[in-house]
Amino acid sequence: MKDKVLEILKENKDYISGEKISNILNVSRTAVWKNINTLKSEGYEIDSVSRKGYRLISSPDILTYEEISPYLNTDFIGKKILYFNTIDSTNKKAKEIAETSSDGTLVISEEQTSGRGRLGRNWTSPKGKSLLISILLKPKIDPSKVSNITLVGAAALVKALEDFDIQGLIKWPNDIIINDKKIAGILTELSAEINQVNYVVMGIGVNLYTNKEEFPEDIRNKAGSILSETGKTIDRKKFTGKFLNYFEKYYKEYFLGNNFHEIIKISKEKSILLGKEVRVIGRDYSYVAKVLDITSEGHLLVQKEDGAKEEIYSGEVSVRGKNGYI
Amino acid sequence: MKDKVLEILKENKDYISGEKISNILNVSRTAVWKNINTLKSEGYEIDSVSRKGYRLISSPDILTYEEISPYLNTDFIGKKILYFNTIDSTNKKAKEIAETSSDGTLVISEEQTSGRGRLGRNWTSPKGKSLLISILLKPKIDPSKVSNITLVGAAALVKALEDFDIQGLIKWPNDIIINDKKIAGILTELSAEINQVNYVVMGIGVNLYTNKEEFPEDIRNKAGSILSETGKTIDRKKFTGKFLNYFEKYYKEYFLGNNFHEIIKISKEKSILLGKEVRVIGRDYSYVAKVLDITSEGHLLVQKEDGAKEEIYSGEVSVRGKNGYI
Repeated sequence: MKDKVLEILKENKDYISGEKISNILNVSRTAVWKNINTLKSEGYEIDSVSRKGYRLISSPDILTYEEISPYLNTDFIGKKILYFNTIDSTNKKAKEIAETSSDGTLVISEEQTSGRGRLGRNWTSPKGKSLLISILLKPKIDPSKVSNITLVGAAALVKALEDFDIQGLIKWPNDIIINDKKIAGILTELSAEINQVNYVVMGIGVNLYTNKEEFPEDIRNKAGSILSETGKTIDRKKFTGKFLNYFEKYYKEYFLGNNFHEIIKISKEKSILLGKEVRVIGRDYSYVAKVLDITSEGHLLVQKEDGAKEEIYSGEVSVRGKNGYI
Repeated sequence: MKDKVLEILKENKDYISGEKISNILNVSRTAVWKNINTLKSEGYEIDSVSRKGYRLISSPDILTYEEISPYLNTDFIGKKILYFNTIDSTNKKAKEIAETSSDGTLVISEEQTSGRGRLGRNWTSPKGKSLLISILLKPKIDPSKVSNITLVGAAALVKALEDFDIQGLIKWPNDIIINDKKIAGILTELSAEINQVNYVVMGIGVNLYTNKEEFPEDIRNKAGSILSETGKTIDRKKFTGKFLNYFEKYYKEYFLGNNFHEIIKISKEKSILLGKEVRVIGRDYSYVAKVLDITSEGHLLVQKEDGAKEEIYSGEVSVRGKNGYI
């Protein structure tokens, strides 16, 4: 109902009377008035002039369905969006609703009180300065293929950045880097039987406008935001729309069309690791190696110091710059 | 409190007075009397004689912590047991409580109203005639290793059967067969990040006393119970205890000691597939092959009709007898 009032306001550039709205929606004028007030409380600037009616002056910078959907041209991603002002973790919420929600449902929050990075690490996100989004996916695939969804997410992020003339690099498999600073990360989780995925939740955190001093001290030299590294304040809604459009395109190519080519191409072109010396860190070992390639399967091909080549699955290791950097 | 009254009754072969029990537990005699009544309603046969007190005649055939723990010599498996008379699915419940419950917690039910086999198939289980148990596990391992937990479960099941002089065979990876009839199945599910398991739930259904005519008609020629195939009525509590003891032993050998040898040895010795012609059924293909071996990694090694050898992960395929049987 509130959404429909908003829709009417957005469609009418000029003032529209409460009576007209109440006629269109077949509700009382009091109901219209109440919904207008709710919209105002959400940050919508609505001018009301007696005898003329209501006019939408501006929409708030929020990531609700109403605000994002105009930027989406997707088939199934973002057809339903759960939007929160604050939440413990968007991934956690997405997992909670997974069994009863449809493929492509999004959980978005302005703030996370216990956001997580990979392997239980914290993820800092001051209110309203990030894009915190979890995508619920229900691909009919083997659990072994799930790790490549992270590559799809990373490719979609750098392509969306490119549309704002920003060059992001991918630190295989799940971080986006600008100026040697991590500005975005991906945390992919899955629920599965041995040979069939129940669902996947891909959580993405992008630092958009975070200031240097807002990052905890211990990561301040490694973390950055799009604003802090490029000086640009990009439109959140537009960026979110572009990212989701690219994501669905590549996701479909990979999982429906079996076409991983474009994603691998982007993963290589934008890789910050190719040709570099890195430290490969497993559960109970670690070694220095040179990154040779990203294979057609999405694995990292490295060469150890003794010349031996290893293919690395994202499931196996963390990769760090040789001296621990990045 | 009820548990403590039961404990005292079990410790005393002779009559013990309500007053004595109330003194030991430091509660009122009315409280003792109420708990005795609750125990009676659960099926405990308790004789009460005025001036002499109470005596436990027999315990019901239920799989509560009090009834199973005397048979357990485990470190962490079964330290906590959630017991239900009826439930939708023990795996579902185990997943619900997973984040807040400890490693080794069990969910046991006398009946499942929507029990599942692999890939969403149904699992039939008339009340009180099966062992329906889900084990919550929190190993610090790669998701890729989880499939072998199924082999650990299957090995523990055939070893427990052996202790009752029953020869069960393993249809790799997750079924137990007697007389070409499936008498038990395992459904392992996991929640994970790309490179770390959050938790595993291994659900096991064993048909103990089910009669032929209690199975749905369409599976009646493939399904059986221990009773229907061997004529033996084995003690459920003892069987459950033995199974869990073996399971913890092998689980620890594998995940803590990196020793998979014994499990593979059992998997091979008890395999119903080795040397057989089978049909390997993948997501979008199927072929006939001969089973050559179970590798040291727990994979099935088969040879196709053109002579090519394939290593099969349990994640990839279903295996059926060449003509669809078993």
